[in-house]
Amino acid sequence: MRIVVPAGGIGGARFLQGLRAVLGTDAAAEEQTTDSSITVIGNTGDDITLFGLRICPDLDTVMYTLGGGINEEQGWGRADETFTVKEELAAYGMKPTWFGLGDRDTATHIVRAQMLAAGYPLSTVTEALCDRWRPGVRLLPMTDDQVETHVVVDDGGGRRAIHFQEWWIKHRAALPAEQIVGVGAEDAKPAPGVLAAIAEADAVILPPSNPVVSVGSVLGVPGIREAMAAKTVVGVSPIIGGAPVRGMADACLRAIGVETSAGAVAAHLGSDLLDGWLVDEADADTDVEGIEVRSRPLYMSDPAATEAIARAALDLAVELAEKGEERG
Amino acid sequence: MRIVVPAGGIGGARFLQGLRAVLGTDAAAEEQTTDSSITVIGNTGDDITLFGLRICPDLDTVMYTLGGGINEEQGWGRADETFTVKEELAAYGMKPTWFGLGDRDTATHIVRAQMLAAGYPLSTVTEALCDRWRPGVRLLPMTDDQVETHVVVDDGGGRRAIHFQEWWIKHRAALPAEQIVGVGAEDAKPAPGVLAAIAEADAVILPPSNPVVSVGSVLGVPGIREAMAAKTVVGVSPIIGGAPVRGMADACLRAIGVETSAGAVAAHLGSDLLDGWLVDEADADTDVEGIEVRSRPLYMSDPAATEAIARAALDLAVELAEKGEERG
Repeated sequence: MRIVVPAGGIGGARFLQGLRAVLGTDAAAEEQTTDSSITVIGNTGDDITLFGLRICPDLDTVMYTLGGGINEEQGWGRADETFTVKEELAAYGMKPTWFGLGDRDTATHIVRAQMLAAGYPLSTVTEALCDRWRPGVRLLPMTDDQVETHVVVDDGGGRRAIHFQEWWIKHRAALPAEQIVGVGAEDAKPAPGVLAAIAEADAVILPPSNPVVSVGSVLGVPGIREAMAAKTVVGVSPIIGGAPVRGMADACLRAIGVETSAGAVAAHLGSDLLDGWLVDEADADTDVEGIEVRSRPLYMSDPAATEAIARAALDLAVELAEKGEERG
Repeated sequence: MRIVVPAGGIGGARFLQGLRAVLGTDAAAEEQTTDSSITVIGNTGDDITLFGLRICPDLDTVMYTLGGGINEEQGWGRADETFTVKEELAAYGMKPTWFGLGDRDTATHIVRAQMLAAGYPLSTVTEALCDRWRPGVRLLPMTDDQVETHVVVDDGGGRRAIHFQEWWIKHRAALPAEQIVGVGAEDAKPAPGVLAAIAEADAVILPPSNPVVSVGSVLGVPGIREAMAAKTVVGVSPIIGGAPVRGMADACLRAIGVETSAGAVAAHLGSDLLDGWLVDEADADTDVEGIEVRSRPLYMSDPAATEAIARAALDLAVELAEKGEERG
């Protein structure tokens, strides 16, 4: 099976671990990641340039998680990380100081910045970085163009747009967001391979990632949503019992006027896109017109649970694809 | 007294510690480094771009040494240094691997690279970095233009030019050098403040630095040597008893056809430039036409010894300057 997964940060990366286990594609066993049956379209809207380095938090979270380099406990950044460079930059008075720039992580950003400066597109850079990490999936950025998610806030001094990372990390999404904008999204083109991967896919699976800034940013690149809508698309709800499983997705949903509930998120994603929607047992009464809703335990509490969720999503996709063929 | 010191790496930086002590300019006591009575014109010929970072080994050695951040034992790099970034870059297959890029040091290069990319000249960047280190001297790069010392070698595969750092660190200067070239030197202009500092100086003191690639590179920027030659110039021999006090200056001298002896180095620097020359007692019989040679212990074995050498150089400069006035 060929599966395409648009992915953001931690939730997406963990789900992908389960999906990879189900599909039997193993990082260590696999020499050619490009032959993988999983293509990940990574959100780049969180990307930010700090200290002259280009930082791609979501691509790195997927790469480190699937490549065995992640800090498992916090879900982002490298294991056994140190923060000497960050401390030294602060000693020079460099701003910002709120970004968790680890030393191991810094090397990734140095490689990326150097390759970008040499003229390589982000997709090529990502492939080169994955040469080391061998994530067992094909990891593509959603676009090689610069798209940055900005958040319009009003902190008393008037409305202003700040980078998503500043809102998310520095303000911990506590500053009410009036608007979330993908700067550059309108003119962005899907990265090479993205549309082809979707076209060749048996199904698209939306992991339990932030529906606004992770999955939403990927869908915001012109052409990607349309291509996915032509496929069987099954999503896993990132909302359980009216709250995000992890992170601060509720703050993002509030900003775009969507209720924090499994059903509202499915309706927001739209029945033109979504064919199936997995919700937690707590949300078993969810009903969304035009979308096949199934309930099951959705907490990715350990690898086995995560694998079972991925298997359920796959099974639902196969079922709905067959139904579609019967109908078609 | 206003003193100008062209300086390269370790020898220059240690000598400057002694000179600063003699002149009573203390890093901690001094708020305005630009009012210092010592202006250092740092060699930038050793500078190299690695991993997209601009690395200025000699400027940093002076800055770290006088600012209290140096690894005292090795004489270069930061104290309490770690090498995580370097190891990670190697894990990505990044070349070269021979450069000793420490984590603390990396932050300096990140700040510098970012400021250079933003359009600031190296002199402004150096001033900004010194804002943190407060070296107690005014540290100027010899030029804001790119000058890189390359070494012509023949390693069996034919003659080729390699960067000085590759020759010095990777090959430990063991590969015979046929030529040493300051690429870009001919067209370089002295950095802002350099010629003015020399014009206002009471004397120029050449520290016991590599006469070819440290002091030599500074003198190679058009206009600097001429400006210095108009002043009282006293040098401290980096050669004792026919061998470099430290480092591999002999390999550099061989490349330009100069004998490794205190006298030959003085003659190479030239009596048009040098007024006085301090040699070690082992070289007491040194005689160079047109240059006042004095002998005394020249090993910078501890701070007191270094200070005494600096004082002797200053005393000789004062003596020769007075003589010059009498004559003039």
